[in-house]
Amino acid sequence: METITNIKEMQARCLAARSAGQTIAFIPTMGFLHDGHLSLLHEGRKRGDLLVLSIFVNPTQFGQGEDLERYPRDFNRDEMMARECDVDLVFYPDATSIYPNGYATYVTVEGPLTNTLEGACRPTHFRGVTTVVTKLLTIVMPHVALFGRKDFQQLAVIRRMTADLNLPVEIVGMPIIRENDGLAMSSRNVYLSASERQQSLSLIDSLTAAASVVKAGERAASAVVTKTVDRLKSEPDLKVDYVKICNAETLEEVDEIDQKSVMLLAVKIGKTRLIDNGLLMEQA
Amino acid sequence: METITNIKEMQARCLAARSAGQTIAFIPTMGFLHDGHLSLLHEGRKRGDLLVLSIFVNPTQFGQGEDLERYPRDFNRDEMMARECDVDLVFYPDATSIYPNGYATYVTVEGPLTNTLEGACRPTHFRGVTTVVTKLLTIVMPHVALFGRKDFQQLAVIRRMTADLNLPVEIVGMPIIRENDGLAMSSRNVYLSASERQQSLSLIDSLTAAASVVKAGERAASAVVTKTVDRLKSEPDLKVDYVKICNAETLEEVDEIDQKSVMLLAVKIGKTRLIDNGLLMEQA
Repeated sequence: METITNIKEMQARCLAARSAGQTIAFIPTMGFLHDGHLSLLHEGRKRGDLLVLSIFVNPTQFGQGEDLERYPRDFNRDEMMARECDVDLVFYPDATSIYPNGYATYVTVEGPLTNTLEGACRPTHFRGVTTVVTKLLTIVMPHVALFGRKDFQQLAVIRRMTADLNLPVEIVGMPIIRENDGLAMSSRNVYLSASERQQSLSLIDSLTAAASVVKAGERAASAVVTKTVDRLKSEPDLKVDYVKICNAETLEEVDEIDQKSVMLLAVKIGKTRLIDNGLLMEQA
Repeated sequence: METITNIKEMQARCLAARSAGQTIAFIPTMGFLHDGHLSLLHEGRKRGDLLVLSIFVNPTQFGQGEDLERYPRDFNRDEMMARECDVDLVFYPDATSIYPNGYATYVTVEGPLTNTLEGACRPTHFRGVTTVVTKLLTIVMPHVALFGRKDFQQLAVIRRMTADLNLPVEIVGMPIIRENDGLAMSSRNVYLSASERQQSLSLIDSLTAAASVVKAGERAASAVVTKTVDRLKSEPDLKVDYVKICNAETLEEVDEIDQKSVMLLAVKIGKTRLIDNGLLMEQA
């Protein structure tokens, strides 16, 4: 395994691999790897001759007052975990090489995919995500890139962006990986105190409860949303950002629940923001 | 020579050529080729094993009320001229494949490079240019792309955009090609009536006059601009959009003229908008 920090060197290596007929599988991350990331690396290992991991805490996707500074970082640990996953190249650039002096170019996906849900709560977030992912994809030029479905909306936005910009890459969405008690894996989980950690189980609880109610016959989205908000609000330190039931492809809110309906949750527990989501009907 | 309209086919061909070790030279155009384009093709022929020309009248770079509908088109003539320039691949997509239903992604260069000059007169113009050029570059994946210096600001914006997005391409700017009497070649010149054609010579006249005044010792940008505006306004059907003297790299206006100063002109003659530019001091 090799770690590369220089952009031009990384790009030259990847273009050379591509020209030599190797397929490149790519997992872009912000580091502080957990089992969710590892599941992407394991799948990537199967799909690419060259397995590339990037670690970059991207400043442009954090809003003012968000947790850019305190976002957890541990490069040595990440490197060890990457080695165990048989990663070939770790791309580890710094912020001033990704956004040098005079940097001025941004990629935006406009409209309903980005102005609801996370986009409504974090107005510049997706602009930062699509900009850095475009840059990473033009540097690494992978055949396939893998993303977790915990960031459900991000995955939809990236699918749209890569299709729209004709980037020659297959985007693969992978299942959410959870702790034993059901909390979705996230680098931000380390922020949680013991009491907050306990309260965070209300997310998986309410997703499970919603699916049960739907299984029992409920089809009205508003009824399921109300029940979910009530459940979440029973936690003392939890503030609901949103609870919405949307079409899984367009992310438009739906009135009536069907096979394509996904429930998306965002909450703050103390100072920590958590998101989660789940399809509401068993898939055929 | 082969003409390809399908995006995926074009991309597969170019990626295969690249993998086979061929260098790709690319000239993106809106068609209705003139000697300016041909000079790009001749240079491209020297620089690439595979010479690719795209012809696409890009709707997103036209503002409301601009000349998208009446923009001159003659694909058969373009194809003949391309063949004479030994072009290998002509990429000729239609607007609905470049911007399919649900299209939502835009590339923008923000700040002083795009909010002055053409950007001030045509607010959505560069967003359209940078979006389509990003798409064309990800489809064709050239080693080198050539642009004319008549669109001086466009060249600066594209240099910024390709560097910022880490696109692995060299951007080459080529000299303005002029008619015998000095009018800069442009597909839009066909719009001009005989009288307007005569008045259009005021652009090269005033660029030449400005350079003479500077050669005689004038260094105050405001004095040269005033003289130029007066000269242009002596034409009965000419309306000045802007006359500015800027730093050739940053495009910021300058007070004092030096080696890096470029004068940029935009006028309307009747219904036809024309631009031109020139460095004000002889280059060492």
